[in-house]
Amino acid sequence: MKSLTRRLTLNITERMEFVNITPDVQDAVRDSAVEEGLCLVNAMHITASVFINDDEPGLHRDYKKWLEELAPFDPSPQRYHHNRTGEDNADAHHKRQIMGREVVVAITGGQLDFGPWEQIFYGEFDGRRTKRVLVKIIGE
Amino acid sequence: MKSLTRRLTLNITERMEFVNITPDVQDAVRDSAVEEGLCLVNAMHITASVFINDDEPGLHRDYKKWLEELAPFDPSPQRYHHNRTGEDNADAHHKRQIMGREVVVAITGGQLDFGPWEQIFYGEFDGRRTKRVLVKIIGE
Amino acid sequence: MKSLTRRLTLNITERMEFVNITPDVQDAVRDSAVEEGLCLVNAMHITASVFINDDEPGLHRDYKKWLEELAPFDPSPQRYHHNRTGEDNADAHHKRQIMGREVVVAITGGQLDFGPWEQIFYGEFDGRRTKRVLVKIIGE
Repeated sequence: MKSLTRRLTLNITERMEFVNITPDVQDAVRDSAVEEGLCLVNAMHITASVFINDDEPGLHRDYKKWLEELAPFDPSPQRYHHNRTGEDNADAHHKRQIMGREVVVAITGGQLDFGPWEQIFYGEFDGRRTKRVLVKIIGE
Repeated sequence: MKSLTRRLTLNITERMEFVNITPDVQDAVRDSAVEEGLCLVNAMHITASVFINDDEPGLHRDYKKWLEELAPFDPSPQRYHHNRTGEDNADAHHKRQIMGREVVVAITGGQLDFGPWEQIFYGEFDGRRTKRVLVKIIGE
Repeated sequence: MKSLTRRLTLNITERMEFVNITPDVQDAVRDSAVEEGLCLVNAMHITASVFINDDEPGLHRDYKKWLEELAPFDPSPQRYHHNRTGEDNADAHHKRQIMGREVVVAITGGQLDFGPWEQIFYGEFDGRRTKRVLVKIIGE
């Protein structure tokens, strides 16, 4: 069994933003020399997501508006008890649960086994500091 | 290490529908001859889900109503920017994020290691065309 | 390839509660002797979740309030068709979809490869009876 572990570093200047990390994951798959296996990609932070969807700016704008409706940013300690700890990012912990922590992608013939429009995104909900994504590959 | 890759094809005539694909996944597990391992099942389309829950028609009706409330179908470009691209399926991209892209199920003793009521469903949110599900199994 | 299968048993006296199961998963990883691999942790019940987030009581209080808003408990058969079957837990099937069924965590150097605040929780939405969580580890 082969394995590869890689950490990607992201610096998002916005509070909420989505970044296409597919090329970085493809590089890791190539470097692993795994032909058949599984590739886990997860946010290493609990106010961020990794998800697969479309690389279409209008859709990303829709997601941001929708997530803001489902879990509004509100630094006050009234709406969110979490913000009584001195944090202001309770909303980000909620948004992350909607969009998910991780994806697992099949590797077939040495490539990410994607459907026609699948792209991997890092979703930041509490940006303006350095964050990391973990890529873990196992297979043969 | 053994591996198996299988693509299931689905043709859903409704816009939104859930299909129990557990027997197809069980067939793939049997054909893989994997005794101990992991089985990834994912939608290959970004307006569809694979999820595990109960095979109960009333619950599925509840899910559809709930998803329609959380992310209503609206082909107009006013509610969803994504629909300015000529698509009408922005709602389906949102519903899919709630229900998830994929499940990973343990294989133990050559069987899907399920709890008492777990069944695997394909969730279609933009049907009336051919879609695919990927089953990837690794183990020994 | 090595593998380990472990079932954790939980008895939650509340209807909705979150329990940090990280130490139990770490025990399983140690017992597996896997140095590089993947660890799947999933609820074996369809009204429960396994998720990764912060071990902060205020946040957990926020999650409960938010999930109750998104999918209110209502045993009547009017809101949820599922409750026409004699069940009263349709809301729990919805809450579980928001929080997710499972997590997959990388194992690196014999340890769960966590970011700074990641902890694994069992999320119960229909408690007061015995439930199980499955831990499946594969790797080398």
